[in-house]
Amino acid sequence: MFKINVICIGKIKEEYLTSGIYEYSKRLKRFCDLNIIELREESIFNESSENINMALEKEFCLIENNIKKQNNNKYNILLDINGEMLNTIEFAKKIFDLQNNNISQINFIIGSSYGISNKVLKYIDFKLSFSKMTYPHQLFRLILLEQIYRIFKINNNEIYHK
Amino acid sequence: MFKINVICIGKIKEEYLTSGIYEYSKRLKRFCDLNIIELREESIFNESSENINMALEKEFCLIENNIKKQNNNKYNILLDINGEMLNTIEFAKKIFDLQNNNISQINFIIGSSYGISNKVLKYIDFKLSFSKMTYPHQLFRLILLEQIYRIFKINNNEIYHK
Repeated sequence: MFKINVICIGKIKEEYLTSGIYEYSKRLKRFCDLNIIELREESIFNESSENINMALEKEFCLIENNIKKQNNNKYNILLDINGEMLNTIEFAKKIFDLQNNNISQINFIIGSSYGISNKVLKYIDFKLSFSKMTYPHQLFRLILLEQIYRIFKINNNEIYHK
Repeated sequence: MFKINVICIGKIKEEYLTSGIYEYSKRLKRFCDLNIIELREESIFNESSENINMALEKEFCLIENNIKKQNNNKYNILLDINGEMLNTIEFAKKIFDLQNNNISQINFIIGSSYGISNKVLKYIDFKLSFSKMTYPHQLFRLILLEQIYRIFKINNNEIYHK
């Protein structure tokens, strides 16, 4: 089964987000093997740029380890406010094309509230932006899952009740 | 107190969205007088374009009545996928400028899952787009409230924990 990994930082704190994410994870089961990989978030007590960079560095190592242990037919999409903007149909087509192009899993990588180390870029195949607006990274997990569900519905010619 | 109305169609069906919206409504209380005005959603059993247009027409009448009974110092923002995209800082500045320009209330107008009648445009001062992606209109209420909360935090020089 086609594999979707959402690689993200930190545990969800808000219960309503946990419930929403659970809801879409459930619905996605018939379309893909979904894994939400929550990596350890570094605590930053003093927000100096040095401390932030150190935290991002540690978080990057966890992301890197995760990507490295996967098989080769993967495609890594970084969620990045400055990435390319696609509409839902274009996003659906992109995933459809990847599935038909020997890709067996997609990693969606979401940084923490402080962002993500630039070192991750060497692994990235595509930078995708949902918005020019800054969303909270935890709410964004829900937004992303809804959109992934939506594109699988579209790619399977199913009606989507908005 | 500065008034923010979110004019939208239909009751929220998912409990996790209700909880999330409640959370941000609570947090927004110290910044503005927030009203979420849920207008009656028309049921469409047969999705012909005629039926959809009839439903949008009825929904427009409710929106129009709502806008008309308000005082004059209002500013109407339509949430529209084809509207202008702002980043969070630009959005914050826009609201700040309105507040300093004799505007005492802002209406954010969100259509239903079928959209909104073009007739609403004569009332609209600004069309704002959050994304090229299509979001569910119910999830979008949560996204919008979080962003409004974020811009009030920014405009009040408060730190925002993302």
